[in-house]
Amino acid sequence: MKNVNVSIEACLACMVECEKCATDCLTMEGHKACIKLCRDCADICALCARLCARGSKFADELCSLCVKCCEECALECSKHEMECCKKCANVCKKCAEACKM
Amino acid sequence: MKNVNVSIEACLACMVECEKCATDCLTMEGHKACIKLCRDCADICALCARLCARGSKFADELCSLCVKCCEECALECSKHEMECCKKCANVCKKCAEACKM
Amino acid sequence: MKNVNVSIEACLACMVECEKCATDCLTMEGHKACIKLCRDCADICALCARLCARGSKFADELCSLCVKCCEECALECSKHEMECCKKCANVCKKCAEACKM
Amino acid sequence: MKNVNVSIEACLACMVECEKCATDCLTMEGHKACIKLCRDCADICALCARLCARGSKFADELCSLCVKCCEECALECSKHEMECCKKCANVCKKCAEACKM
Repeated sequence: MKNVNVSIEACLACMVECEKCATDCLTMEGHKACIKLCRDCADICALCARLCARGSKFADELCSLCVKCCEECALECSKHEMECCKKCANVCKKCAEACKM
Repeated sequence: MKNVNVSIEACLACMVECEKCATDCLTMEGHKACIKLCRDCADICALCARLCARGSKFADELCSLCVKCCEECALECSKHEMECCKKCANVCKKCAEACKM
Repeated sequence: MKNVNVSIEACLACMVECEKCATDCLTMEGHKACIKLCRDCADICALCARLCARGSKFADELCSLCVKCCEECALECSKHEMECCKKCANVCKKCAEACKM
Repeated sequence: MKNVNVSIEACLACMVECEKCATDCLTMEGHKACIKLCRDCADICALCARLCARGSKFADELCSLCVKCCEECALECSKHEMECCKKCANVCKKCAEACKM
């Protein structure tokens, strides 16, 4: 069963790494999909954490979207060798687990 | 069929009125549900507009959540007589229509 | 000297408690100023953490605003006896310290 | 003198074009600075619009930061020939004007 505080922590950790990854990857060729997913993932994780923190009735639905976005971002980031991508794939996987019902 | 620019405009107009309504209603008794929904609605509309603007692959799913949130917020705000609530209910209904597929 | 990772963690912890405090205080009379400050503080802390994480050239200026907002929010929340207000005042003070240059 | 509604509209128009520009420029070489500024500018404009809409006591300070960010983003985007950069430079200039005191 989902633990709200675990979800919040996982979303915020994921948001931070996605911000870093979206920034660091701007210097690399072939990272367009990675940057796009990291931007979306940072935004979705940020809102997910906030809706969970405030006990919103829409938190569960945003968690579902967060799982999907994190899984796609993890898949894309795991294709790359850069340190930021490895870290990002790792926290995305953890966040997807933490946000599952 | 959904027109992305129409959705973006509707989301942003809705976000602005929800911010105003959540603020103005703080002086009123019996507006707790209204304030909570307005906060959620402002946040969800804001992200919806941004994901639509950037052509995110998650835009459609956030639009679906936006429709649901706007409909609930419109229903709640339409129970109240304050000017901010009437305005908010109106833009919420328009936003829900604009974000439907 | 400011440590970016410490600032990010402090901003995110502050954002979470401000979300909770703004929500819990909706049931209380006389908490209008507290709710308003918590909403602003949650938003400013959220953006501050993200600009710090991505190494934005505007991060320092948002940190300065964050310090001011956190100090005001801590002052207001420390007037109240509710558990959420005490917690919030505490993390706001820590965040203000962490974001100072 | 600053008109709040004009500032809000200008910030939201700027946010939308910055989102588009940050996305479209991912396909181009030599647009790293442009993408970074557009991401910051979209985020700062979004929060600025919301703080203005809710009558926050921190709105003026965020407006000042918004002016600075918009001016830098306009300067960078005006170096490029892409349609999205021209549009973005244009709305950034308008937003900087609208947010000046």
